[in-house]
Amino acid sequence: MASFHAQFPEFDSHVRAVFAEQSFMRGIGAEIGSVSPGRVEIVLPFRDDLLQHHGYLHGAVIAAIVDTACGCSALTLMPAGSTVLTVEYKINFMAPAAGERLVARGQVLRPGRKLTVCSGEAVAVVEGNEKPVAALMATMVRVPPAGESEQ
Amino acid sequence: MASFHAQFPEFDSHVRAVFAEQSFMRGIGAEIGSVSPGRVEIVLPFRDDLLQHHGYLHGAVIAAIVDTACGCSALTLMPAGSTVLTVEYKINFMAPAAGERLVARGQVLRPGRKLTVCSGEAVAVVEGNEKPVAALMATMVRVPPAGESEQ
Amino acid sequence: MASFHAQFPEFDSHVRAVFAEQSFMRGIGAEIGSVSPGRVEIVLPFRDDLLQHHGYLHGAVIAAIVDTACGCSALTLMPAGSTVLTVEYKINFMAPAAGERLVARGQVLRPGRKLTVCSGEAVAVVEGNEKPVAALMATMVRVPPAGESEQ
Amino acid sequence: MASFHAQFPEFDSHVRAVFAEQSFMRGIGAEIGSVSPGRVEIVLPFRDDLLQHHGYLHGAVIAAIVDTACGCSALTLMPAGSTVLTVEYKINFMAPAAGERLVARGQVLRPGRKLTVCSGEAVAVVEGNEKPVAALMATMVRVPPAGESEQ
Repeated sequence: MASFHAQFPEFDSHVRAVFAEQSFMRGIGAEIGSVSPGRVEIVLPFRDDLLQHHGYLHGAVIAAIVDTACGCSALTLMPAGSTVLTVEYKINFMAPAAGERLVARGQVLRPGRKLTVCSGEAVAVVEGNEKPVAALMATMVRVPPAGESEQ
Repeated sequence: MASFHAQFPEFDSHVRAVFAEQSFMRGIGAEIGSVSPGRVEIVLPFRDDLLQHHGYLHGAVIAAIVDTACGCSALTLMPAGSTVLTVEYKINFMAPAAGERLVARGQVLRPGRKLTVCSGEAVAVVEGNEKPVAALMATMVRVPPAGESEQ
Repeated sequence: MASFHAQFPEFDSHVRAVFAEQSFMRGIGAEIGSVSPGRVEIVLPFRDDLLQHHGYLHGAVIAAIVDTACGCSALTLMPAGSTVLTVEYKINFMAPAAGERLVARGQVLRPGRKLTVCSGEAVAVVEGNEKPVAALMATMVRVPPAGESEQ
Repeated sequence: MASFHAQFPEFDSHVRAVFAEQSFMRGIGAEIGSVSPGRVEIVLPFRDDLLQHHGYLHGAVIAAIVDTACGCSALTLMPAGSTVLTVEYKINFMAPAAGERLVARGQVLRPGRKLTVCSGEAVAVVEGNEKPVAALMATMVRVPPAGESEQ
């Protein structure tokens, strides 16, 4: 697996601050976990109101969390002040998600000045064991801070 | 565009009944619109609690609605009693979604005994005009009714 | 379907010139067909050396032609002198490809200054009838002419 | 990374035999490398006639090889006599491919009785170092041997 370097020392707190502004993530109770250059983990405790009628976590919630983990992983490698948007993603649902919590992991495959390619996964934690739930691949685009001449 | 035929006369009410069981769709206020063989429309009035802090509809909500429209479009062509699961989808976000309501349209590209390929789009309706917001392509799998010998 | 306008009058001959430089397309005998703003068609007569051992056109050839049709459709809407690269695509194979020729159609869903979203399809022409073979969705990026200050 | 078990001892020779029937792979000079349960590697020495006019390997060739590596990785986990078809894939092109050879690696993320989800990557080997070129995610479907009652 490739190893990457952040472009400014406060990347960790910057990513956590950007995540904290995501009211959708807050609303469903998702919390950001470990943050390292090119990798971010998000954890979602299962909650009754996020389940389908079969008792599984809704696919829309799974996709949202892995997408966010990927976007945050891209952000760890961008210049200070950047934010990030999802250009596109593709997700495979591999198994229904039940258990204690969902863990989503995003990682950068290829950082770029504009576009960053990421892959992500979601696993359900069931009695301490991880079970693969979904895999995702995404293209992210950097949004420069306001005032920066866009290039 | 291909024209398809439903396999049983009550496909419309069956699709509406399956949609009605989706508590996530109900929770966000989405309503099923027109249903025809191979095509389904879902409408979502914009609502403050579905927006990001920039005032746009959240990507997770957009993806969920187009995915559901595609799943329902696949269901229109399946045998009586079937339900449907999303194997995978890919979505491109093309513009931020603001306006009065979001309209998601799913259509079948290729029906199959097991797998059905669908494409979908989301448009934002702004002062009566449609603006493209997202495009999606999905693979759906038929889930036979309980008791049917699976084949 | 959206209607688009080209940015310079010679878009047609520019796209045909860029296509003509694609030695892979030439090698397999693909020919560019109709070109209009946001839409390009490529035709490939079936040839024994492009088939699998079951007598169907190889998936790699199908993907290459639809991808190229999409790239060319994006190019029709770009400024003079641009070329185009594929950022990513997703393809569903819907049926084996046999017949007289393959027709690939690319169209722009959303043009952008940098990124353009396209959808494409491949149909096999069998005794004059079209049969859907594959569907594709792609993100293209504009490559500005050398010397243009990139922005 | 998950570890998988093959369903019959001769999976290695079966996968190599299926690969050997792929005339497209033979035509471009691709060779199958290591084969283990859930993982397959394919190697392609660079060759002048596979390059674009800029001297890079053509994207269609890259996609074909990673797709094939994924299909073969899925096959390692299927029952004896199976073959495999690609339902769909998504590929991100991350960097131009130049060097001595391309190495494509396919691995199973989630095996299934019908559908198997795979991820793949292509790296260019340049003076002994690997450089990421493309990432792919695919859904494969098992084709049972003729005569097996399909289920």
